[in-house]
Amino acid sequence: MQGKKPTLLKGTRDFAAPQVFRRNYIFDTIRHIYQKYGFLPLETPVLEHLTTLTGKYGEEGDQLLFKILNSGDFLEGVDSHTKDYKTLLPQIAAKGLRYDLTVPLMRYVAMNKDKLIFPFRRYQIQPVWRADRPQKGRYREFYQCDIDMVGASSLLCEAEILVMIHEVLLQLGIKDFTIHMNHRDVLKSLATLGGATNQEGALCVTLDKLDKVGKDKVLEELKGKGFSPAALERLLFIFDLPATQVDRWPILTKQLGLTQKGMQDMQKILDYVHALGLEEPSITLDPTLARGLSYYTGTIFEVKMKHTNWGSLGGGGRYDGLTDIFGLTGVSGVGFSFGLDRLYSVLEALDLFPSSMGSTTQVLLANLDPASEKWTLKALTTLRTNDIRAEIYPAVVKLKKQLQYAHKRQIPFVAIIGEEEHAAGVITLKDMRTRTQQQYSLEQMLQELS
Amino acid sequence: MQGKKPTLLKGTRDFAAPQVFRRNYIFDTIRHIYQKYGFLPLETPVLEHLTTLTGKYGEEGDQLLFKILNSGDFLEGVDSHTKDYKTLLPQIAAKGLRYDLTVPLMRYVAMNKDKLIFPFRRYQIQPVWRADRPQKGRYREFYQCDIDMVGASSLLCEAEILVMIHEVLLQLGIKDFTIHMNHRDVLKSLATLGGATNQEGALCVTLDKLDKVGKDKVLEELKGKGFSPAALERLLFIFDLPATQVDRWPILTKQLGLTQKGMQDMQKILDYVHALGLEEPSITLDPTLARGLSYYTGTIFEVKMKHTNWGSLGGGGRYDGLTDIFGLTGVSGVGFSFGLDRLYSVLEALDLFPSSMGSTTQVLLANLDPASEKWTLKALTTLRTNDIRAEIYPAVVKLKKQLQYAHKRQIPFVAIIGEEEHAAGVITLKDMRTRTQQQYSLEQMLQELS
Repeated sequence: MQGKKPTLLKGTRDFAAPQVFRRNYIFDTIRHIYQKYGFLPLETPVLEHLTTLTGKYGEEGDQLLFKILNSGDFLEGVDSHTKDYKTLLPQIAAKGLRYDLTVPLMRYVAMNKDKLIFPFRRYQIQPVWRADRPQKGRYREFYQCDIDMVGASSLLCEAEILVMIHEVLLQLGIKDFTIHMNHRDVLKSLATLGGATNQEGALCVTLDKLDKVGKDKVLEELKGKGFSPAALERLLFIFDLPATQVDRWPILTKQLGLTQKGMQDMQKILDYVHALGLEEPSITLDPTLARGLSYYTGTIFEVKMKHTNWGSLGGGGRYDGLTDIFGLTGVSGVGFSFGLDRLYSVLEALDLFPSSMGSTTQVLLANLDPASEKWTLKALTTLRTNDIRAEIYPAVVKLKKQLQYAHKRQIPFVAIIGEEEHAAGVITLKDMRTRTQQQYSLEQMLQELS
Repeated sequence: MQGKKPTLLKGTRDFAAPQVFRRNYIFDTIRHIYQKYGFLPLETPVLEHLTTLTGKYGEEGDQLLFKILNSGDFLEGVDSHTKDYKTLLPQIAAKGLRYDLTVPLMRYVAMNKDKLIFPFRRYQIQPVWRADRPQKGRYREFYQCDIDMVGASSLLCEAEILVMIHEVLLQLGIKDFTIHMNHRDVLKSLATLGGATNQEGALCVTLDKLDKVGKDKVLEELKGKGFSPAALERLLFIFDLPATQVDRWPILTKQLGLTQKGMQDMQKILDYVHALGLEEPSITLDPTLARGLSYYTGTIFEVKMKHTNWGSLGGGGRYDGLTDIFGLTGVSGVGFSFGLDRLYSVLEALDLFPSSMGSTTQVLLANLDPASEKWTLKALTTLRTNDIRAEIYPAVVKLKKQLQYAHKRQIPFVAIIGEEEHAAGVITLKDMRTRTQQQYSLEQMLQELS
């Protein structure tokens, strides 16, 4: 009986045509803009060596990797006394599913360093997998839309990415967003200010929970991590900054110092953003922004919707030395990734998808009887030759049933070429939306449908 | 040291921009035509329950499924005395990677039978995975481009698919192809003729090797499977049929009988193909065509190149009852699948890819000095606003280096806006192909690049 009443795996989804069209609308918009900014596509395999993936995403990330069981007799040669799954694991699994698009990029760059042209501008729109607990809006198989510039340390790169994020979101009709920006150095200074020099790692992990648990829980956790209550007082200002960029700046520079490298970098980036023509960017300096991944060494970005707690639409930042582990040192890069699902949810919630989308059949040809079928098939071919999306109902059944099929499929027109029509050299075209019908010559019908 | 000198897994590939553009060219061509024939997209997850996948592809197929190790402590609750990998397997792995696009379609149809509109016309272009031994032209991760009509038993469906295959291949510029067509009933009759009634399964498996091992080895193997030498004599004609359809017909009808259902079906399909306007279809009746998958219950197709042994460009056929195992009975369907990699190889070998393809950057803006950067950035934004793919070199380095970058990236134009140009209100545009340069106003440059 296995296999009866089949189900989807938790955290995975089927996408029917309307969803595919909507998803492709987002992909196409992003791809077009990425290419306009000089980025070119890269695709990497879903399967990678586990050695390529493990140790890159922290201990929790390693747990969340999907691992592929070795083929054939995977127990062959395995020490039969192994009772512990952690010891057994590397003996029976050597492959894993892509967890993000950044590590595969670094693997690709390291492998192809001699033939790549730096700065290397690539985008990559592919699915990734995480064995996470599925939740509302969180899946185990989901698409990321990454863009990275590798081998360029200029802050102009950051500025271009920030401007590009604006263009993508505005193009999709999303206006009410804010790009939160922070810098590793700011987090460092905050750790020092909090009396815990070089503890910005711990600070990041804790700050990352701010949206979920709130300020009080964050302060409590920091205390537990060795930040002294007195020193934490000096950090309180970061939770109560004014909303606007302009008002935040003097407070931050006062607390962190004007010569602070992170602050200077961000000022320079904002200058570039202005020079690129964005007079009033939706960017806010946010010293509480940390993001889970600890590999950012410079700027850190995250896009959120204003006024709503919809989570992150995407994030990124600058990383140095990510290819080190693959034997290529001294490479700096900066990247950003849109999450497809969040964008989709926002467009759906705000009713921002274009009303007509996709490529549904434009006309159904009714299949009346074996005699009519012959000329109907000829008309079908003419329609397709003229690039009209057309289909014939594949069997001779009652016209009513064929009309119902067209209605359910949302096919706007049904063409009928019975014996009478054939004799008169016309086609009866039913408009399924207005429930009217009219007779046309084939030529006229082509014009009507084009 | 693990992770140093990273490599790709055998049978997987990275695709750089030129390959991605070429692959997308094939995908877009196929997608456009599939949609013109009234088919709509479906996407299913890469991960499926192993219970959904196993037992559908024969014993060999089950071996070739990639299986995902359960997350966390996968040994928890496992009988510690299990020493046999086949017994252990279902206890530690419950998920697998998609092996083809047909079984997921059947799973989807069975799950959504109440809301789907039949006949259900869907296409699906997604990768699949097989733990096969990698060989030249055979990968472990590869794309299939499937099209299926589910819930329709009319032979018109087969005819539409055959015409569509012609349109796809001709659109891609491939002329020298033949669609081999056979029918399960023909194979049945051949088994009877060979004195092994109901042994067409064994016949299929053996005939499937004909291209690889040749006629003599096939006959030898059939003898081993119980086909008597005397009866095999009666089968010899299938190996020496004339090349053309017209010449084959009388021989086949004589041997198999005019009333043979398979022969009648194929005649009817060919009539439909003609009625659809294809006067001289590249279709040949091929009684030796069997295909590995045994689920075809009616027609069977395979596309091959004439004169060259490049293997199959795609295949398909009619299947009845494929959803039975998922609890939905009485459903007939017919489908076809193009293999992306074979199409790619043929287009490459025959030099059929369009010469200009993809979306490479149209113009690089040189980055001369901090002063010029400002107006150069403004020009950059103007270009992008006018939908020109443009980028600025992200750092101030020697112009020669920037020109080299443009040359290597095959960017056709480099725009220079130094202090002189700025003062004169012009832009120097270098044509990298002709190595000439000319001065334009921004307006003129936009026209030049559009």
